[in-house]
Amino acid sequence: MTQTVKWGDCDPAGIIYTPRVLDFVMETLEAWCRDVLGIPWLKLNREMHMGAPTVRAEIDFMAAPAPDQDMVTALRVQKVGRSSVTYELTGSDGDETIFYRARLVACFITRPTFKPAAIPEPIRSRILTYQEACGDA
Amino acid sequence: MTQTVKWGDCDPAGIIYTPRVLDFVMETLEAWCRDVLGIPWLKLNREMHMGAPTVRAEIDFMAAPAPDQDMVTALRVQKVGRSSVTYELTGSDGDETIFYRARLVACFITRPTFKPAAIPEPIRSRILTYQEACGDA
Amino acid sequence: MTQTVKWGDCDPAGIIYTPRVLDFVMETLEAWCRDVLGIPWLKLNREMHMGAPTVRAEIDFMAAPAPDQDMVTALRVQKVGRSSVTYELTGSDGDETIFYRARLVACFITRPTFKPAAIPEPIRSRILTYQEACGDA
Amino acid sequence: MTQTVKWGDCDPAGIIYTPRVLDFVMETLEAWCRDVLGIPWLKLNREMHMGAPTVRAEIDFMAAPAPDQDMVTALRVQKVGRSSVTYELTGSDGDETIFYRARLVACFITRPTFKPAAIPEPIRSRILTYQEACGDA
Repeated sequence: MTQTVKWGDCDPAGIIYTPRVLDFVMETLEAWCRDVLGIPWLKLNREMHMGAPTVRAEIDFMAAPAPDQDMVTALRVQKVGRSSVTYELTGSDGDETIFYRARLVACFITRPTFKPAAIPEPIRSRILTYQEACGDA
Repeated sequence: MTQTVKWGDCDPAGIIYTPRVLDFVMETLEAWCRDVLGIPWLKLNREMHMGAPTVRAEIDFMAAPAPDQDMVTALRVQKVGRSSVTYELTGSDGDETIFYRARLVACFITRPTFKPAAIPEPIRSRILTYQEACGDA
Repeated sequence: MTQTVKWGDCDPAGIIYTPRVLDFVMETLEAWCRDVLGIPWLKLNREMHMGAPTVRAEIDFMAAPAPDQDMVTALRVQKVGRSSVTYELTGSDGDETIFYRARLVACFITRPTFKPAAIPEPIRSRILTYQEACGDA
Repeated sequence: MTQTVKWGDCDPAGIIYTPRVLDFVMETLEAWCRDVLGIPWLKLNREMHMGAPTVRAEIDFMAAPAPDQDMVTALRVQKVGRSSVTYELTGSDGDETIFYRARLVACFITRPTFKPAAIPEPIRSRILTYQEACGDA
C-alpha cells in the first residue's frame, strides 16, 4: 500500500509529525483487514459484535518523510494466537530508505463485554493463508 | 474557552494547518454543549437517539497562530429556529488579534432516520437563556 | 480525486467527523496544486518564499459518509483575482449523493511578510487554462 | 496534565481511536518540555537549530476512554544518555484505571544535518533535576 505524505501530516520542522506515522500504520492495517481478510471494521463491529483493538504498539522511527513523499507499507503476520495477532509493518520509500518499523498486537474481543474471543472463521484461516503466502508461517 | 496551539497542529509553514481551526471550533462547541447546555454529545446520541450535525460552516481566517499560542474562543448564539441553531465563534489572542470568525449551523435530527426534529426541552430553553445573557436575543 | 473514508475519520455516531471533511477538501486542493499546477506547497514555501493560505472557507454538509465509503471530489475554479483564487469543491459518491459543497478562497502572499502578492507565472496561466478547460472561464 | 477525550478523538466503536493516544502522549511531552524544561519545541527548532525527534515508541493500551472522560498523564524520566532521553508516560483516570503506558525515546539532533548531539545545557540539568525530584535518578 502506498500513501502520500501530506502538508498537514507534517510539523513546523518540515517532516511528518510522529503520531501521524501511527495513523498511516493503522490505515494500512484497516485496508488490509477490508481487502485481504474481507472484513471491514464496521462489519466486525456492527454485524459480528466484535472488535480487534490494538493492545500494544512498538514503532522505530528511522527516517522522517517530508510532504509529497510516498510511503510504501508492507504488512506481515508475525504470530497468530488464539485471540491475538501480531503484525509487522514496515514503511519505506520503496527503495533503500526505511521510514519506520512497527509491531502491532491486536486482540479479538466480543462487544460490548470487551472479553478476548477466539479469532472467528473464516478470518483465522485467511490470516494463516496470508502468512504462509509471505513465507512467514 | 482557551486552547493552546500545539506543534502537531501546525504545518511546515510554521502556522496552524487550516483544517485544525475547524477542529478547535468544534471542540469549543462540544464543550459548550456539555458544560453550558448540560448535554454531552454522547448522551444526545446514545440516550436521546438524536444528533446535532453541522450542516453549514463558514470561516474567515484572519491571522494564523503558531505553536504555543493561546486561542481564546467566544461562542454566541445568533439564531434559534425550530430545529436549527446558528452559532458564531470567534478565536482571538484574548486581546486585539482575531484569528478567525466562524459561523456554524447545526440541525437537530432524530436517529437513525436523520430527519430534522424540534430542539427538545430543556435544551431549547437553555440555548435561549444563554443567548439572552449574551445580549443577543 | 477519490478518497476513502477511514475508520479513524468517523466519530461515535458512525459518520465522518465534521472537521475531517475540511481535511479531505484541503488534501484535494494540495494534490491539485502539485499535480495540475505543478507547484507542490513545499516548493511554493521554501523555494519561492510564498504561500497561498486559505482566507475563507464555506462548506455545506449534505450527507455524511461512513467508513469505507469512497468520496469523489471535483474541483473547479470559480474566480481568479490579482492575488486570490476562489475554488469550488464538491464531494460525492460518484453518483447522485452529494456529501458536501465547499467554496475556498486562497490568497497568494509573500513570506515572511504575509503581504498579498500577484499570482506568479506560470501558476496564473495554468489556473486560467484549467478553468477554461472546465468551461468555467 | 489532564486532557479531556473529545468526540472527534473517538471512532465508531465509541472509544478513543488508537493513534489519538499517541497524540495525547506527544502533547504531554510537548507541554512538559515547554513548561518544565523551559524549551518550547519552536525555540529548540528555530533558535537553537536542534530537534528532539522520537526515535522509538512503545505503548500498551490497557483500557480505552470514551468521549468526555478525563485522562491524567504522568511523565517520568527513565534514562538520560548523552543525546537521548527515555520517558515513561502513564495515562489514567486519576484513580485505578490505567488507560495506557508508553515509553518514548527521543534523541537530540542538530539541524539540518539530523546528526545526534549531546543534550545541551541547561536542558540536561533540568531533566536530571526533574528525574531526581520524582525519585527516579
